[in-house]
Amino acid sequence: MALNRLKSIAQQVTGSSPPPHPFDPLTNVEIEKAVEIVRRDHVKLNFNAVTLREPAKKEMLKWLEEPSQTPRPLRIADVIAIAPGGKVCEGLVDLKNETIIKWEALEGVQPLITMEDLQIVEHIVRKDPKVIEQCVLSGIPKEDMHKVYCDPWTIGYDHRFGNTVRLQQALMYYRPHVDDSQYSYPLDFCPIYDADKQEIIHIDIPEVRRPVNQAKPNNYHVDAIEKEGGYRTDIKPIHITQPDGVSFKVDGRVIDWQNWKFHVGFNYKEGIVLNNITYNDKGAVRPTFYRLSLAEMVVPYGNPEHPHQRKHAFDLGEYGGGYMTNSLSLGCDCKGAIHYMDAAFVNRAGESTTIKNAICIHEEDAGILFKHTDFRDESVIVTRGRKLIVSQVFTAANYEYCVYWVFHQDGTIQLEIKLTGILNTYAMNPGEDTKGWGTEVYPGVNAHNHQHLFCLRIDPNIDGPNNTVFQVDATPGAGAVGSKENPYGNAFFAERTKYSKVSEAISDYDGVTSRTWDMCNTNKLNPYSHKHVSYKLVSREVPKLLPKEGSLVWKRAGFARHAVHVTKYDDDQLCPAGRHVPQTSGEPSRGIPEWIADGEASIENTDIVLWHTFGITHFPAPEDFPVMPAESMSLLLRPRNFFTKNPALDVPPSYCSTPSQIANKSQVLDAADKVSKLAVVGSAA
Amino acid sequence: MALNRLKSIAQQVTGSSPPPHPFDPLTNVEIEKAVEIVRRDHVKLNFNAVTLREPAKKEMLKWLEEPSQTPRPLRIADVIAIAPGGKVCEGLVDLKNETIIKWEALEGVQPLITMEDLQIVEHIVRKDPKVIEQCVLSGIPKEDMHKVYCDPWTIGYDHRFGNTVRLQQALMYYRPHVDDSQYSYPLDFCPIYDADKQEIIHIDIPEVRRPVNQAKPNNYHVDAIEKEGGYRTDIKPIHITQPDGVSFKVDGRVIDWQNWKFHVGFNYKEGIVLNNITYNDKGAVRPTFYRLSLAEMVVPYGNPEHPHQRKHAFDLGEYGGGYMTNSLSLGCDCKGAIHYMDAAFVNRAGESTTIKNAICIHEEDAGILFKHTDFRDESVIVTRGRKLIVSQVFTAANYEYCVYWVFHQDGTIQLEIKLTGILNTYAMNPGEDTKGWGTEVYPGVNAHNHQHLFCLRIDPNIDGPNNTVFQVDATPGAGAVGSKENPYGNAFFAERTKYSKVSEAISDYDGVTSRTWDMCNTNKLNPYSHKHVSYKLVSREVPKLLPKEGSLVWKRAGFARHAVHVTKYDDDQLCPAGRHVPQTSGEPSRGIPEWIADGEASIENTDIVLWHTFGITHFPAPEDFPVMPAESMSLLLRPRNFFTKNPALDVPPSYCSTPSQIANKSQVLDAADKVSKLAVVGSAA
Ligand SMILES: [Co+2]
Ligand SMILES: [Co+2]
Repeated sequence: MALNRLKSIAQQVTGSSPPPHPFDPLTNVEIEKAVEIVRRDHVKLNFNAVTLREPAKKEMLKWLEEPSQTPRPLRIADVIAIAPGGKVCEGLVDLKNETIIKWEALEGVQPLITMEDLQIVEHIVRKDPKVIEQCVLSGIPKEDMHKVYCDPWTIGYDHRFGNTVRLQQALMYYRPHVDDSQYSYPLDFCPIYDADKQEIIHIDIPEVRRPVNQAKPNNYHVDAIEKEGGYRTDIKPIHITQPDGVSFKVDGRVIDWQNWKFHVGFNYKEGIVLNNITYNDKGAVRPTFYRLSLAEMVVPYGNPEHPHQRKHAFDLGEYGGGYMTNSLSLGCDCKGAIHYMDAAFVNRAGESTTIKNAICIHEEDAGILFKHTDFRDESVIVTRGRKLIVSQVFTAANYEYCVYWVFHQDGTIQLEIKLTGILNTYAMNPGEDTKGWGTEVYPGVNAHNHQHLFCLRIDPNIDGPNNTVFQVDATPGAGAVGSKENPYGNAFFAERTKYSKVSEAISDYDGVTSRTWDMCNTNKLNPYSHKHVSYKLVSREVPKLLPKEGSLVWKRAGFARHAVHVTKYDDDQLCPAGRHVPQTSGEPSRGIPEWIADGEASIENTDIVLWHTFGITHFPAPEDFPVMPAESMSLLLRPRNFFTKNPALDVPPSYCSTPSQIANKSQVLDAADKVSKLAVVGSAA
Repeated sequence: MALNRLKSIAQQVTGSSPPPHPFDPLTNVEIEKAVEIVRRDHVKLNFNAVTLREPAKKEMLKWLEEPSQTPRPLRIADVIAIAPGGKVCEGLVDLKNETIIKWEALEGVQPLITMEDLQIVEHIVRKDPKVIEQCVLSGIPKEDMHKVYCDPWTIGYDHRFGNTVRLQQALMYYRPHVDDSQYSYPLDFCPIYDADKQEIIHIDIPEVRRPVNQAKPNNYHVDAIEKEGGYRTDIKPIHITQPDGVSFKVDGRVIDWQNWKFHVGFNYKEGIVLNNITYNDKGAVRPTFYRLSLAEMVVPYGNPEHPHQRKHAFDLGEYGGGYMTNSLSLGCDCKGAIHYMDAAFVNRAGESTTIKNAICIHEEDAGILFKHTDFRDESVIVTRGRKLIVSQVFTAANYEYCVYWVFHQDGTIQLEIKLTGILNTYAMNPGEDTKGWGTEVYPGVNAHNHQHLFCLRIDPNIDGPNNTVFQVDATPGAGAVGSKENPYGNAFFAERTKYSKVSEAISDYDGVTSRTWDMCNTNKLNPYSHKHVSYKLVSREVPKLLPKEGSLVWKRAGFARHAVHVTKYDDDQLCPAGRHVPQTSGEPSRGIPEWIADGEASIENTDIVLWHTFGITHFPAPEDFPVMPAESMSLLLRPRNFFTKNPALDVPPSYCSTPSQIANKSQVLDAADKVSKLAVVGSAA
């Protein structure tokens, strides 16, 4: 592994390596080359992002079809930078021909906040006299300013400041001791930070003041637990091993596993990107999805009091799910036999950086895949399933999001997201009423209601790029009980509504009808069912956007107004809340609302993208504090009428006997794993 | 293990064993004793069920409180039998005093169909001249009657036959070869079987005839797969081991694991029953649920044509989730270190029988339990979770249901159900239109639309038996955008609706508001949040009952009309569709609709039961055939405002570093499992 990596770096340096796959993220070498080319014309820049400009789909589909006959798509770097004085500019760099092919200055937009941007703010607030004054008013002596912390958030949008100045809001906290969790000690005021001037330009101070919490610390680290009685000692280890190695193959970033083949990309904004996902159906390599990614998210908080309306982070568009990603660690985040991939980024200074082990790829046992027993003779088949998981974990200030892309042997792709980390908290006085906008999760700690709304970008490629979406609702048949067409009243069917144009596809979830959405290739019928080959989106955690129509969140997070939007494919439409999200006013709404336009564009039997917003509404409870046990949500992309039979029938069973074997007492297939054992159980008595 | 079992049997026989726990199912010895006592007065009986009559809750709560000070509840057998001539009778037998304490003959009811009842029918249909005639008409030579099979189903209710005669409907199939799956060869007629006379009394014959399918077999056993190219060979083993043993203790049938303690019962109807579930909250043993079980289910099919309206099996009430349970096998159904429990039943002749390994109890790794990284210095905690799973698999003719009761370290109880097995199928002619009521999953095979609706019986005991249910809906705050109370339009809150009386609690799911239900102890507030201690029912797979109001299913499956009903606790109310389900007409509706009565009973701050109907609507596709990859659904019982903090904080972390450790470069906690390894990946090239 280490050797391979050294070899790969050496190859990059000497140029002797095979060229990167066109979907591969820019390498460290390519990032530095892009910076060098930009610097030839633009000397003084702070870099915000240097990332792969993905090849045009049309060009790429051709190349994927016949890589040896087709010119390899160029490696293009997509560069965003900020010049001294705050001038934002962006451009495209052709890495092969070493030319800047596009460069422009932008007005009235702010690119996302990087980790470096975030890191600076805390140092500034600690030294700001007005902040110190407020800390003293909160009961913190000025010599304790090193105990004051802040989580710098994008400002959302504040009409008082607009978007010409690059701003952050500093959510303030106090730590009695450096190892205490500051989220038990929220402060009640909120400084506004100017990133260009690197100074505090304003402090929002509430009418009712709330001095710093006097409760004792509420920690989760080792010392704290030891003091409270120590760790439980009764959990015996579980070992998960693959003595013969893993079942997947890796070619660069292309993964080959159980008939699935796909490319694992990664960028600073979306994190993991899965491209060109195909399924080998008995020799026929069938495309399923051209591209899958988490494209955006928004976390609106529900406290109506100023300035909490500004708390509605777009964690991907405003911070970057790639930039915030964790370096994962063996036996902690991931158990078993693990393949990691690193991530390369640019820093402010234009150097390349690496997050080691940004992506984890591993297999897990998936329980019973299928089973059937014939009740006549107990002839039986039982087959265990396996899944392949491509995952990352990112930390968005207080919260962590664990993202798992799961491939199943039955042709299903699952996206599971676990939420953990720490609640965003605000100060409250003893006896103060939360008014229902939050929960006192610990004395003096108010955790506000909020939603976590994710936007999944699905670029379907169901046996080809020309697809059509149908809404499917489980619906009782026509006719009253006793009628000719429904004599017993038991009739029901799958009501299918075709989305012919963009306006028709603007749709909400309906739990009563168990609504799903079929992405179909209407040019191809399943030979048995005579229904369109399709993948079905099955998603059950689909709350309504609770901020009202016309509210700031509603305006800025246009994607979140509905569960599903469908647009015609466009290479430039990757970011459902706009390319540059911080400080957008929502007037006009960026991203999906722009692309919808008059809604008249045809989305029938053409290259389309389905945008799906899902998530949870989180009413905090003390159980979520001081660190929150992971809460999981999950959605499925299931093949329906895509295969002619269960595609996993050839997964070797653990046990299989047939009626004739039982009748003849002949040998049956017993391939049960011989490592599982009866438990030796101690008595509780 | 084997030795323990021998010892336990020996103890039972010699009477030297400790007395059973009052919740323990009847032992084989007790079953035979009950039969013997009944036979003293009632010589000629075919036994339908001999099961534990669970102790009265009032009595049992006292005993659980102070077992040493309280008389041990008597062991009572609940006996159901059928006398020659079809007379149904039932009674209670006091096993200690060896007396029949209640005995009565029943009119107009039919107890459930046992496996023995089912097994007989196929032999009868094969010999019936009218059935043979229909087979010949279908294209099956009469000398091939040994190739004719049937799945005997309860008849549902057919007004032509009523409920005084015990009936089954025989869903007919053909197997070209004994090892072929008959579900590819459904026959189009349906004999009606009289269980008392053991003869066919009628055959339902459709107007349009459909001769037996001419398609080639569609099998899933080893030979078939070998013929089609063989099994995939690229799945490497995953070994799951617990070298130091398991983390749970077993005392009889009481399981003790990670602060949880509960009794695992089992009966012929519900299968697994979990009783007296408590959580040890730092020394305080706190009750959570008195009893949890899957109490009923119904599978209505949506084809309106006669006689398909009769297909709406109540798999628990009409067949028994215990009676149909599989004997599980190590390394196949269950992987890792497994503790099994057997199940004892009575047979028709009054002998006791045993299903070995009916219940599986084991632990699994549960991924990240919680994690947080401080973005300032990368100090981090990551703790892996563990879960304990109590499971069974039962086979209901064509389908299998895998039931997993999952205990989590964060205080959550999860019920997961996997559906696998084989679709119920019906014949169709080439080119025939399914009219939307089904899918041609294989040439000549029509799989009808259907729902799987389960009824979970929740007997909450949230810090005591007096509980109250609140409906919780995520709701935008009052006031338009710009109003004084909601200036930014972002306000939202958890709207709580108290269910004071039974009629108010009749409620449906609402996906738009992410509706949940809180089971609260209103007599106790969380000391931090000042909210009622509670467990929340979080369930997202809650389709509407699609058969219409007034239809047969609607009348018979009253529990399925709504997602939630709440009733006042009653020892006699265990079966939401009635105690004897087969051939009920639904006039009047049995079970919950009876118990609701005028809806006026108070359910506020008293001993209550919450009945929750959930499930899926299944529109079949070829992917589900010839055997269906498991489809999973899941619901949660989550502690909210029950604990004062995350109750799993004392689970040992895999890795934990603090800011001061990082600053001082001092030793951090690294307890990552040392068995996980980097994958050695072969190249796909
Ligand atoms: Co949250
Ligand atoms: Co089904």
